[in-house]
Amino acid sequence: MNKGVEWAVHACALLAPLGAGRGLSLAALADYHGVPLPYMAKQMQLLSKAGIVRTSRGHTGGYALARPPQEISLWDIKQAVDGSAPAFRCTEIRQKGPCAVPRADCRAPCAIAAAFSRAENAYRDLLRAIRLSDILSDVTGEGNAQHMLGMLRWYEANVTVLPEKKPKAPAS
Amino acid sequence: MNKGVEWAVHACALLAPLGAGRGLSLAALADYHGVPLPYMAKQMQLLSKAGIVRTSRGHTGGYALARPPQEISLWDIKQAVDGSAPAFRCTEIRQKGPCAVPRADCRAPCAIAAAFSRAENAYRDLLRAIRLSDILSDVTGEGNAQHMLGMLRWYEANVTVLPEKKPKAPAS
Repeated sequence: MNKGVEWAVHACALLAPLGAGRGLSLAALADYHGVPLPYMAKQMQLLSKAGIVRTSRGHTGGYALARPPQEISLWDIKQAVDGSAPAFRCTEIRQKGPCAVPRADCRAPCAIAAAFSRAENAYRDLLRAIRLSDILSDVTGEGNAQHMLGMLRWYEANVTVLPEKKPKAPAS
Repeated sequence: MNKGVEWAVHACALLAPLGAGRGLSLAALADYHGVPLPYMAKQMQLLSKAGIVRTSRGHTGGYALARPPQEISLWDIKQAVDGSAPAFRCTEIRQKGPCAVPRADCRAPCAIAAAFSRAENAYRDLLRAIRLSDILSDVTGEGNAQHMLGMLRWYEANVTVLPEKKPKAPAS
């Protein structure tokens, strides 16, 4: 799995408690996670492309979740960063060698590919059932009061007000 | 996932119908699957190291399953070739940055790592429940009679009798 998945989930978890119209700059996201800015940028671009976060440019701009945390699953984030190709890729080995099965007799998937596909579906379904809102309380350790206070101060210092989207000017 | 997993499962499926004391040479296994011998050798070595197949050297030697097909799961084979490291590796991001959670407050795993771990467990459990014996009937396509006959002939021409293990000579 791409290591970026872990950073991407953490970034989304950090954005999750912000109210509507509030965001965090790329610099703040990178700083909070102690990760180089270009690396954080890459994950945020992938999340943006997948419609999980939205971004506003400019001095007061930044990233915000594009939907409520209860509508973003860990699978959504994993898929955004890691792609959606199955881990097991059937190369139709049964159609090779001296006892090759004719292609016409391979209408059903190979039982081996089908078995791995069932396992990958179980994995996906479990991650789909876990929403960002389910994990927020546990991400930041076991929550001692001092740490929570530090986080609140960090939010206060870093949260930006996102510019409202301007309605398009009517065609003159 | 390592592409060798697919070859390894197919090789085990080919060995599964052989009776006790019967095997297939590395050359036959590579030929049947239409794959270069060194590549097949690599997967067979990994399977041997994991105790899934056993090998006998010499002219009449070859590979055989080390246990009955109903005692070999797809997870056993996947793990032999792909290793057992989790796909999601938690790097304790919560302990980094300006709001780092003190290590002492991180007794429980990060909720993000715990969620991915649950998903990987579901994947593993499903593959553990699928035994080599469950998939044999479907591996070779939808089984037209001509293909089955071709396979039987191939087995007849290639199956070797494995030498019995000699009991160790008593110390003199």
